[in-house]
Amino acid sequence: MKIRFINARILSLEKDTSLSEGELWVEGNRITYVGPKLETKEVFDRVVDAQGNVLMPGFKNAHTHSPMTFLRSYVDDLPLHEWLHQAVFPLEALLQPGDEYALAKVAFAEYLTSGITADFDMYYNPMEVVKASIDTGFRTFCLGTVTRYKESVQEMVASFHKINGLHELVSYRLGFHAEYTSTPEILSELSKAANTLKTPIFTHTSETEAEVQGCIDRHGMTPVVYFESLGLFNYGGGGFHCVHLTEKDMEIYQRRGLYAVTCPSSNTKLASGIAPIQEFIDKGIHLAIGTDGPASGNCLDFFREMFLVTGLGKLRSKNASAVDALEVLKMATVGGAKAMGLTDADVLAKGKLADIIMIDLHQPNMQPLNHIVKNIVYSGSKTNVKMTMINGKILYENGEFFLDQSIDDIYLAAQTITDRIKKQAKANS
Amino acid sequence: MKIRFINARILSLEKDTSLSEGELWVEGNRITYVGPKLETKEVFDRVVDAQGNVLMPGFKNAHTHSPMTFLRSYVDDLPLHEWLHQAVFPLEALLQPGDEYALAKVAFAEYLTSGITADFDMYYNPMEVVKASIDTGFRTFCLGTVTRYKESVQEMVASFHKINGLHELVSYRLGFHAEYTSTPEILSELSKAANTLKTPIFTHTSETEAEVQGCIDRHGMTPVVYFESLGLFNYGGGGFHCVHLTEKDMEIYQRRGLYAVTCPSSNTKLASGIAPIQEFIDKGIHLAIGTDGPASGNCLDFFREMFLVTGLGKLRSKNASAVDALEVLKMATVGGAKAMGLTDADVLAKGKLADIIMIDLHQPNMQPLNHIVKNIVYSGSKTNVKMTMINGKILYENGEFFLDQSIDDIYLAAQTITDRIKKQAKANS
Repeated sequence: MKIRFINARILSLEKDTSLSEGELWVEGNRITYVGPKLETKEVFDRVVDAQGNVLMPGFKNAHTHSPMTFLRSYVDDLPLHEWLHQAVFPLEALLQPGDEYALAKVAFAEYLTSGITADFDMYYNPMEVVKASIDTGFRTFCLGTVTRYKESVQEMVASFHKINGLHELVSYRLGFHAEYTSTPEILSELSKAANTLKTPIFTHTSETEAEVQGCIDRHGMTPVVYFESLGLFNYGGGGFHCVHLTEKDMEIYQRRGLYAVTCPSSNTKLASGIAPIQEFIDKGIHLAIGTDGPASGNCLDFFREMFLVTGLGKLRSKNASAVDALEVLKMATVGGAKAMGLTDADVLAKGKLADIIMIDLHQPNMQPLNHIVKNIVYSGSKTNVKMTMINGKILYENGEFFLDQSIDDIYLAAQTITDRIKKQAKANS
Repeated sequence: MKIRFINARILSLEKDTSLSEGELWVEGNRITYVGPKLETKEVFDRVVDAQGNVLMPGFKNAHTHSPMTFLRSYVDDLPLHEWLHQAVFPLEALLQPGDEYALAKVAFAEYLTSGITADFDMYYNPMEVVKASIDTGFRTFCLGTVTRYKESVQEMVASFHKINGLHELVSYRLGFHAEYTSTPEILSELSKAANTLKTPIFTHTSETEAEVQGCIDRHGMTPVVYFESLGLFNYGGGGFHCVHLTEKDMEIYQRRGLYAVTCPSSNTKLASGIAPIQEFIDKGIHLAIGTDGPASGNCLDFFREMFLVTGLGKLRSKNASAVDALEVLKMATVGGAKAMGLTDADVLAKGKLADIIMIDLHQPNMQPLNHIVKNIVYSGSKTNVKMTMINGKILYENGEFFLDQSIDDIYLAAQTITDRIKKQAKANS
């Protein structure tokens, strides 16, 4: 398939956040041209008139748990640790084979509506998410979720070898759920595996004050210091949330080039706190953004996340110029791509993977046109996502999905599973 | 026009936030039936199959400055007082007759995309907003904006008599911009007018710490105590923002039944602070929600505002159960209607004005269905607004506008004005 987009404003993010007018060509799963308007005799399968709308790299959702759609607005309004132990873990125990596949597909559909073209997806049975990803056409980096209850390091290493190289849309990275759901033995074993495979490690880190205090009580160290002491970061990696990092933690992030993935919707709804984003920026710490799972912040909406990253940063710093909107746009795209290791889909340039979105400026929230790029961060909404293309294929356009299943069938499958789980939970209670 | 909505989930908000299944009829500008499915031989001009989607009262935007669309993403990243004096006021001085009419129309279109069916609109030349409102079919409560620079109390009283009763879509209320932009003489005169007309007064109140401190320095009192001492609240009213209210201020709000209108997007982007919403709820203070103008929080999106009201409330209280989502939904609808005095369009019931929206549940962010009403607050987006009806007329449906002008003409008019102002500002600088 050869597609030509003409009359576009192009936010390539190759050098900076400036826009240029021109056109973009896609052939197969790659970008073959980005630049000014061309006279050409080449034949295309489709020519799309962008009508002055913005073409930009898709957003990279650097932390999520896609199959958790069944818990969306099922249990709300609890702090993290109660919510996990009293609600989430017992309900997750009722999942059956095949459930995670169907539940992840609802999340993938929502990512498309929000211009998200890849995710860093942490859940228990990676093969279900992998299959859902391949069938949908979505790009997923699965992440191991070792805990003392589920999944062993051995199983994770097996997944690592099985999934990497399986299909161009999926990859696998090593990870563990959190310090408080693991043991020193598990983390030692994991460290050995990471050092053998020479691969980065990601985990939930310093999401709440209670988590940090618990780790200090158990190990005499903050989570970040503890993880480093175990050699877990010898080949890089990073942490999800990073709300309560100390100066020493930040020094480790800075020195090792680790990625802090901020999840502001989740941290807001669970009252976990506001991450020190301006301090991360000042220290040159790598940043990316995640929605967290659909049971935490409920929606999977990168526009909400981007506004919160800049807005909460301003509130925390008591400074309206803190956490520059253009920096946030880079975190949401290039930053996320780097965190996952997806450097082949970070910017719009010849040879890069065609993971592209079109932002509709013909919507009242973008009018009149002033600073278009800042306005995507300050005012953007899912209604502005006119098209989402992954790996050269348009999966969402003008509100319609182009997937392997009808969207209604995807909803129905997820609802059936959710209803069964609710019924079982009621019977168990 | 007689319209019948069938197969709906109805969130009437008449008693509580429960949903019922059934149908709703509209004739002219009123609701004529809400209840279970009926067998009927009545003839309708249109029958809409809601397909299980939610019908609910439109959101009431209880604080905004609609004509400020020209400043959207034009000047960002400044704290309130610099932003007002260095950017907003000098640029507003370049507005010409007719500009506010055209600029307000962009905001009205955006309100429709967000399910907002009425606004409380504070700007300088009310007749322009009034005309824009009538021509668009939007419902507006204009609010006087007396300052020491523009608009006198006399002019405001003239507008009060001229606009109230002019057209069923528009009303007028007395107001002033803020303590720091008025004088004791203006406020005394205004108090006399309000007491003569026996009418409430609204104003920007305690938006920033600096504003409160300035008022204390000038008058030895917080803004709220000062306003009460002048008799401005003898017939009710309230304040916009209310971020930094003292215990004594809250006691006045409680005792006098005043409305605190919270504007969290604006307070976030301008780093003004987080309003004490849970404390307001605990004290039984009346609450409503506003977007503020499009130059403050940039977008006019009630879903963002609702999430922020509950989310920031949880962060401030360090409690994930604070500021209940269902309370927020009531603030956004019934609360706003009461604040404006629009008690004829607060809930869905026979005889009420037909200001109705349809929330699309057939979107990934609403699937699977669990707690539907909470999910509107936690996960809703403009993409869920399937229809917006005001005064019995559908003005927005399935992404299309049905207005007196094409949406492209509305954008063009606003862009032309904005470009002219930018050119003038450049020439002046």
